Amino acid sequence: MLGSTYTDQTCSIARSLEVVGERWTLLIIRDTFLGIRRFEDIQRDLGIARNVLTARLEHLLEHDVLERRQYQDRPARFEYFLTEKGLGLWPVIHSLMSWGDEFAPSPGGRPTISTHRGCGGELNADRVCQACGELVSSPRQSEAIAGPGAAEGHPLLSKAG
Amino acid sequence: MLGSTYTDQTCSIARSLEVVGERWTLLIIRDTFLGIRRFEDIQRDLGIARNVLTARLEHLLEHDVLERRQYQDRPARFEYFLTEKGLGLWPVIHSLMSWGDEFAPSPGGRPTISTHRGCGGELNADRVCQACGELVSSPRQSEAIAGPGAAEGHPLLSKAG
Repeated sequence: MLGSTYTDQTCSIARSLEVVGERWTLLIIRDTFLGIRRFEDIQRDLGIARNVLTARLEHLLEHDVLERRQYQDRPARFEYFLTEKGLGLWPVIHSLMSWGDEFAPSPGGRPTISTHRGCGGELNADRVCQACGELVSSPRQSEAIAGPGAAEGHPLLSKAG
Repeated sequence: MLGSTYTDQTCSIARSLEVVGERWTLLIIRDTFLGIRRFEDIQRDLGIARNVLTARLEHLLEHDVLERRQYQDRPARFEYFLTEKGLGLWPVIHSLMSWGDEFAPSPGGRPTISTHRGCGGELNADRVCQACGELVSSPRQSEAIAGPGAAEGHPLLSKAG
């Protein structure tokens, strides 16, 4: 990485960014949280170069953030799933989303809303359910739904369609 | 940015990363949270090229994440402070730190610990004070202290010394 690494930094933020700080990486992780798991689907959703996506996925596999499972032979094709370590990034993803909602809003409103699974209440920026008051720590207790600002092609709309 | 922007993405995470997703940017913001405010001090702490630091600071000023205040004439010198928008990034910073503490730990233990200001209890990954149980939403209610893994040169040790 030629002088642009954070490895001299004794800091857990720097260590995190070594793993997930590269451009596109957090959006790849977002896609896997939304259930977009296949190379072709991620590539189409993000519109990034295939070689960049390949490099980012390999980095995330090496660092045990993603794991892959084969779903097809000849040619071998894989789906990408979040490991426990990867699922642990949900608070990062949620807080980036909440900050964007507040300070860099989409013209049509929030594209995606995190809800409390089973309860249906919306989660606020602190991940507290606005219906029942529970603090939600795990992405397994949350469900993302399309919001009023979801544009055509939004992953949650494509899935529903 | 030539094809590497996120602007086609209708997504609050992508919009956030347009502002704070460049390499080093989140570490610059971390430094300002720790009270490192001057160009020379940030440059020395991060060890990055001066032109890169200049570009990142300008981007953060343009996007109203930082504001600068002059502290010296001839030559004019400035200190960088977080705006309300910048302070709103604290949950992102805290969750990146917590993830690093858990999944990419430093050999000596946590370098930095977030505590509940006035109370002194440690904040967990959900920003809940482990002493009094309060959910801490604002960086104004938190104080970062050096942890057992803080190495020589850690900003909080330098400040204390």
